[in-house]
Amino acid sequence: MPAIQDIKVAVDAVVFGYDAKQLSVLLIKRGVEPFKDSWALPGGLVMDNESLETAVTRELKEETGVQIDYLEQLYTFGKPGRDPRNRVVSVSYFGLVRPNHFKIQAATDAKEVQWFPVKELPDLAFDHGTILNMAKERLKAKLQYQPIGFDLLNKEFPFSDLENLYTTILDHKIDRRNFRKKILSFEIVEETDKIHQKGSGRPAKLFKFNNKKYNQLLNEGFHFEIKIV
Amino acid sequence: MPAIQDIKVAVDAVVFGYDAKQLSVLLIKRGVEPFKDSWALPGGLVMDNESLETAVTRELKEETGVQIDYLEQLYTFGKPGRDPRNRVVSVSYFGLVRPNHFKIQAATDAKEVQWFPVKELPDLAFDHGTILNMAKERLKAKLQYQPIGFDLLNKEFPFSDLENLYTTILDHKIDRRNFRKKILSFEIVEETDKIHQKGSGRPAKLFKFNNKKYNQLLNEGFHFEIKIV
Repeated sequence: MPAIQDIKVAVDAVVFGYDAKQLSVLLIKRGVEPFKDSWALPGGLVMDNESLETAVTRELKEETGVQIDYLEQLYTFGKPGRDPRNRVVSVSYFGLVRPNHFKIQAATDAKEVQWFPVKELPDLAFDHGTILNMAKERLKAKLQYQPIGFDLLNKEFPFSDLENLYTTILDHKIDRRNFRKKILSFEIVEETDKIHQKGSGRPAKLFKFNNKKYNQLLNEGFHFEIKIV
Repeated sequence: MPAIQDIKVAVDAVVFGYDAKQLSVLLIKRGVEPFKDSWALPGGLVMDNESLETAVTRELKEETGVQIDYLEQLYTFGKPGRDPRNRVVSVSYFGLVRPNHFKIQAATDAKEVQWFPVKELPDLAFDHGTILNMAKERLKAKLQYQPIGFDLLNKEFPFSDLENLYTTILDHKIDRRNFRKKILSFEIVEETDKIHQKGSGRPAKLFKFNNKKYNQLLNEGFHFEIKIV
């Protein structure tokens, strides 16, 4: 066992935003070296007395103004040389939100903050491109076995909004008829008696997610699953 | 950002063994303080110039004599106070092997090493009980969506061996008829023309896993899945 270890522990946050048929990710422009002026994931060193979860929430808030209390641990990246200064092991976290629920404001080590569409990403500092790719894969997988998408829709939504969400985040076409049949077969999405009229389109029924029913089914051993990719 | 951070980085290994209808886990008895004489997961501090994967492989080999090159990252535990000495963040890994493929031998910080049935575990040092519980859950989940069980059986096996493996690791009864039907429907397990005769039991056909076919199906978008728990 080494008598003295010279490794630092950091946290990084991959915050995805879904809105208006677009998946984006929250990035900061670094105001300090190394990689000054490069875009990067929000994050930083863990303080001695805070948990990893507190650290990532704090860094995200400090650098971007975004307060998200629940981020899920993604993976820990620790390859020697991933930070040109010191050996830094980064515990990465991810989350999925609606961008228009947050006001963004750069501060501390960040000189700018911006939502980038995942299809138009700049080069990222450090190994943040690798971290972001793993987060995208995890998000796609999670969307297929947990009903996380409903949090991103209005409480009552036309079915096409749910289809668009899956199509956009998975970046994959879906068979609309089968998708609808499958989702409705779970009996966790209910038809309301309201009608949605958008532009000159055909009026559509509104649906809502029944969270109570979902939790009840979970207790009975139900597994949500929409396999697309 | 704190000028000086006083956090150490460690790795811990949860190595599961499956053999003779039993799931076990490899533990060491600590030869040093804190928790001297308590059972614990093999592991230790990461050296400055080695990757996390190298560190966990090295610590496992040093403390138990077991050489496993591939362990999968499980989760990173970093709660302040989880180690009474310093703040230590532990990146945990897990793997699944056949115990009789390895000779175990305690050394360095470990004064003993032993396979414990997961149903008869001693109290563990630090938060290693929490780590082990998470690893058990992950193993159960993984067994249901990846064909990892076949590595633990003989190359040619009676179907009952596969059933036993699932029953034991998942710690759950299975519907044998449906299980067999589901497994065979994937067309990755093939009947051989050999017969297995054990004791006075009924002779049983031997089966084998077709890894080439599995990889081919994977490329075509196939998902292995046996939902039991």
